[in-house]
Amino acid sequence: MLIIGEKINSSRKDIKEMVENKNKEFIQELAQKQVEGGAQMLDLNIGTIRKGEPEDMKWLIKTVQEAVDVPLCIDSPNHEAIEAGLEVYDWRKGKALINSVTAEREKMKLIFPLVKKYKCSVVALTMDERGIPQDSKERFKIADELIRALTNKGIPMEDIYIDPLTLPVSANIQNSNTVLETLKRIKDLHPEVKTIIGLSNISYGLPERKLINQSFMVLAVASGLDAVILDSTDQKIMALIKATNLLLGKDEFCAQYLKAFREGKL
Amino acid sequence: MLIIGEKINSSRKDIKEMVENKNKEFIQELAQKQVEGGAQMLDLNIGTIRKGEPEDMKWLIKTVQEAVDVPLCIDSPNHEAIEAGLEVYDWRKGKALINSVTAEREKMKLIFPLVKKYKCSVVALTMDERGIPQDSKERFKIADELIRALTNKGIPMEDIYIDPLTLPVSANIQNSNTVLETLKRIKDLHPEVKTIIGLSNISYGLPERKLINQSFMVLAVASGLDAVILDSTDQKIMALIKATNLLLGKDEFCAQYLKAFREGKL
Repeated sequence: MLIIGEKINSSRKDIKEMVENKNKEFIQELAQKQVEGGAQMLDLNIGTIRKGEPEDMKWLIKTVQEAVDVPLCIDSPNHEAIEAGLEVYDWRKGKALINSVTAEREKMKLIFPLVKKYKCSVVALTMDERGIPQDSKERFKIADELIRALTNKGIPMEDIYIDPLTLPVSANIQNSNTVLETLKRIKDLHPEVKTIIGLSNISYGLPERKLINQSFMVLAVASGLDAVILDSTDQKIMALIKATNLLLGKDEFCAQYLKAFREGKL
Repeated sequence: MLIIGEKINSSRKDIKEMVENKNKEFIQELAQKQVEGGAQMLDLNIGTIRKGEPEDMKWLIKTVQEAVDVPLCIDSPNHEAIEAGLEVYDWRKGKALINSVTAEREKMKLIFPLVKKYKCSVVALTMDERGIPQDSKERFKIADELIRALTNKGIPMEDIYIDPLTLPVSANIQNSNTVLETLKRIKDLHPEVKTIIGLSNISYGLPERKLINQSFMVLAVASGLDAVILDSTDQKIMALIKATNLLLGKDEFCAQYLKAFREGKL
């Protein structure tokens, strides 16, 4: 499971301020904490700041890469901010992940060349001009189109991360099942393609969100999830991922689980 | 999900003493606590006391039924103790569940008539004279035989609880997958038949057992579990079951989840 730290996201008020004020120390500490918690990649999302101003993204990427050695997920609705980020990205830290493209014609035209030029991986959301389909079959169909379009451009299967788009279960009781079924279908039919979700959206609008996130995490891992954007400083959810890996037969001799226990991480 | 409280089990030293000393108050309090925690049935297991002496089982059933109104799961390796329990059982509290029968010829001969005579439900373990098969296909085959044998005797499908036998994942990393696959196969092929597990055995021999139990619970619910024997006084696992039910689309309008929240049970 690729663990991507979610915390540098300008939808959080404090982050927005810290990026706007160029508070290097705050951002670097937050980056380090997430990596210490177990993040193997960090998501940088400044979508709410002046449409993810390219200059802000450049500053953010340099700032974070000064502090930590993990690769980054460059998360913006603005392709110019993504490209600006890619220009300053330090490739010795590992391949960048562009977040995201959709099956919208315009979006594909803007993002595909960046994926190709910079040899990145890319998050592909199961939505198109008509929006996000309600049911899993339709979402899979869009995933299928995106996979075909991306591989036609020479982008390797293993660089594609399909995000089946997690909508809050409080809005529709089937929203969780839809994601889980889409994940399973993708892994059944395209085992080389990767899957990704942002975890916390599932519990939006409900009390005791962590509880729902924990259960959803276990369910998603069992449905074939490869990568997750979450709060890696939350030791409980990180421990639960290790327990789930163990129970799904992916931790020979319980070695990873016991190591985490010895390190006081369970 | 039928929640069965596990705590009155003589493998716990304090319970063994309290049953041997006929400490009514202690047992009744423990019964009440489990029901308050959310148990809809209580498991009474005195297998380690003089082979589950029939007189002990009689005392235990009367004692528990004086205190709580839920039906009981009569859990003993000794068919005489089971029958003694059934003789004094107060049927106004609901149908008793016999725990357990196996596909061993001798065992079937002793237990089937009790299920039939007392119109109970019954836990059927996927093992036979050769022991517990390693793989899920073989366990399913035994489940299938047991279902056929029981229904041939006129016992209705919905009174059969198949237990695919949870062995510790510390002993074999596939032990969890084997149970999950057996559960799925049973529900796929015999949707009317019920499934049951004892939860905590999965984590035997590992540290932070609750963490593993929590993850296994979510995985088992997603694999079609109908009933579980667990510690219903553990609020965390009970809350996680509610969150999982919600995420599997079984809690319309999140009503049960929100009710539990309002009652301070999450």
